[in-house]
Amino acid sequence: MDRRSLIKHAGIAGVLAAGVAPAAHAQAAIRWRLATSFPKSLDTLFGSAELFAKAVGDATGGKFQISVHAGGEIIPAFGVVDGVQDGSVEMAYTAPYYFYGKDPTFCLACAVPFGMNARQMNAWLYEGNGLKLLREFYAKYNIVNFPGGNTGVQMGGWFRKEIKTVADLKGLKFRTNPFAGKVLEPFGVVPQNIPGADLYPALEKGTLDALEWVGPYDDLKLGFNKVAPYYYYPGWWEGGPGLDFYINTKAWDGLSAEYKAIVESAAARTNITMTARYDARNPAALKELVGLGTKLRPFSNEIMSAAFKSAQQIYGELNSSNPEWKKIYPDYAKFLADTNSWFRYSEGLFDRFMQQQKL
Amino acid sequence: MDRRSLIKHAGIAGVLAAGVAPAAHAQAAIRWRLATSFPKSLDTLFGSAELFAKAVGDATGGKFQISVHAGGEIIPAFGVVDGVQDGSVEMAYTAPYYFYGKDPTFCLACAVPFGMNARQMNAWLYEGNGLKLLREFYAKYNIVNFPGGNTGVQMGGWFRKEIKTVADLKGLKFRTNPFAGKVLEPFGVVPQNIPGADLYPALEKGTLDALEWVGPYDDLKLGFNKVAPYYYYPGWWEGGPGLDFYINTKAWDGLSAEYKAIVESAAARTNITMTARYDARNPAALKELVGLGTKLRPFSNEIMSAAFKSAQQIYGELNSSNPEWKKIYPDYAKFLADTNSWFRYSEGLFDRFMQQQKL
Repeated sequence: MDRRSLIKHAGIAGVLAAGVAPAAHAQAAIRWRLATSFPKSLDTLFGSAELFAKAVGDATGGKFQISVHAGGEIIPAFGVVDGVQDGSVEMAYTAPYYFYGKDPTFCLACAVPFGMNARQMNAWLYEGNGLKLLREFYAKYNIVNFPGGNTGVQMGGWFRKEIKTVADLKGLKFRTNPFAGKVLEPFGVVPQNIPGADLYPALEKGTLDALEWVGPYDDLKLGFNKVAPYYYYPGWWEGGPGLDFYINTKAWDGLSAEYKAIVESAAARTNITMTARYDARNPAALKELVGLGTKLRPFSNEIMSAAFKSAQQIYGELNSSNPEWKKIYPDYAKFLADTNSWFRYSEGLFDRFMQQQKL
Repeated sequence: MDRRSLIKHAGIAGVLAAGVAPAAHAQAAIRWRLATSFPKSLDTLFGSAELFAKAVGDATGGKFQISVHAGGEIIPAFGVVDGVQDGSVEMAYTAPYYFYGKDPTFCLACAVPFGMNARQMNAWLYEGNGLKLLREFYAKYNIVNFPGGNTGVQMGGWFRKEIKTVADLKGLKFRTNPFAGKVLEPFGVVPQNIPGADLYPALEKGTLDALEWVGPYDDLKLGFNKVAPYYYYPGWWEGGPGLDFYINTKAWDGLSAEYKAIVESAAARTNITMTARYDARNPAALKELVGLGTKLRPFSNEIMSAAFKSAQQIYGELNSSNPEWKKIYPDYAKFLADTNSWFRYSEGLFDRFMQQQKL
């Protein structure tokens, strides 16, 4: 129902008599379906999609309704790109690095090993060339993307035995994101990619020797501490993984300018809120895990440095072999280097000083 | 114009015949004035208020219009609390720590020395008790606040001579925020509080020996490098200063639920965008400053540690003497300590490793 048909049906005279201002803001009722890659139990990852849908609903008096679905409910957890691309759903919410297999370029919308932290990702996306470049890439998948969350740096994951040296990695069946798997393969790691909901039994049964999921809050919910004692940090393959809202291009084009603006602000609100939620909830969860016997371990500098070199080599190869990657990565890498050179003088020194204090 | 009066004037039969859904979303046209504390030249601080106004305008098809005014244009830069409180303007955009003189409790909405970084502020505000506690405090000023920006940790400012020891601080006429001034007073610093627009001439004429404003991008625009050679870091009195949108309570209460939701999302979008903007623009500005001869200097550990102790002592005194402060600070301090203990294992190690690499 728009202003034009209101005027037609109710009669222009009556409308004018009532003093109705031009109703450019009046909008048709819309129902969309949003498929996520996440289990309902996670009020962080799944909950952020709900938060987005609520923000859109509230801003439109319930006229723009978005129903949110767990991974597998209407689309498989890792099938959401296809689902949006072919229009099975209008929207999805996912961690783009799951789609490394389609094209490693997806990972630049989320996280690559030794890449950006959350602050850097948002800066590159919103105020650098990031979002512009990624939208050019996503266009061929019929996707318009909106940054919609960032977990902050994740943990390195749960290990059944201690991993001190590069040699200790040999033969390790490790569930991690595919790009991290690629970086670790030269050291004999056998990478696995399994949706979150299926991880616990795999680690329990020994199908996996180690896994990483997110961080203390989510990991405690999924109970990984019950089946592995060592909890490594940091997850250097995801220094600030970004979540994306995917919207089918035709569905997006069909929205009014007002609805587009509402979606854009709701996504940005979800983005900042998710990081806030993780930062607020991880500390207590980490304390609880340590109280339950979890042993915290940093990755050794030997492992970090070897992995860093392996990652740089892969980036060099992709720059040569993958034209889509090449269109984006150099800009990403320059932004990363530039911001690190600034953060070294600003955030770095402040945070280090504060983390050393007894508060 | 709401649905009820539309029905009354156009006739319920006609409306029903036209299939009009309940038009809860149809909104009256509104014009608000937003007074900022900032000069128009700063596309970061002033520009963020414009970004907010545009997001609201776009989401409402231009029906909710907010005009944005520089400090002093309709309200003095430091008069915006009074302006919102007495309803002279519906809204303001400011750095709450300017209002230390009214009550140091304002600073907890923005930054206190050796306080939270940007991530921690947002986490405390949105997902801790921060926003709830601050709104209770602001209520007596007829203000409903919305976090609307964060600069990230700021620089320590521009100094005409090197400051290596606590003794070097003696007699220094230093423009900084009032809380930092209070922390530095025991060391003989003579603190000054001057709006941004008036700073350059004061430093040039020697009315000031040193000043701090924000960081490379804004500071370069205001030209401070031309009148002082040493640029100190980090600005430990503002590890992640938050900007606030202030809305007069009565004006807020008069908004529809949809407009309220639109304002809330637009403010959050502004919040994340401002930090992104600073993070994207500061690196090049810092390089340019260094190229122009600016000498970067870290505050010595002697100065940082002495200032840290001085700050803790003031917090202890305020806990005893200021009931408003006491209602909020213990929660703030606990959240700060908890998140630092988590960041030590996560962000801290990742960022440090990355900042050490040659990229």
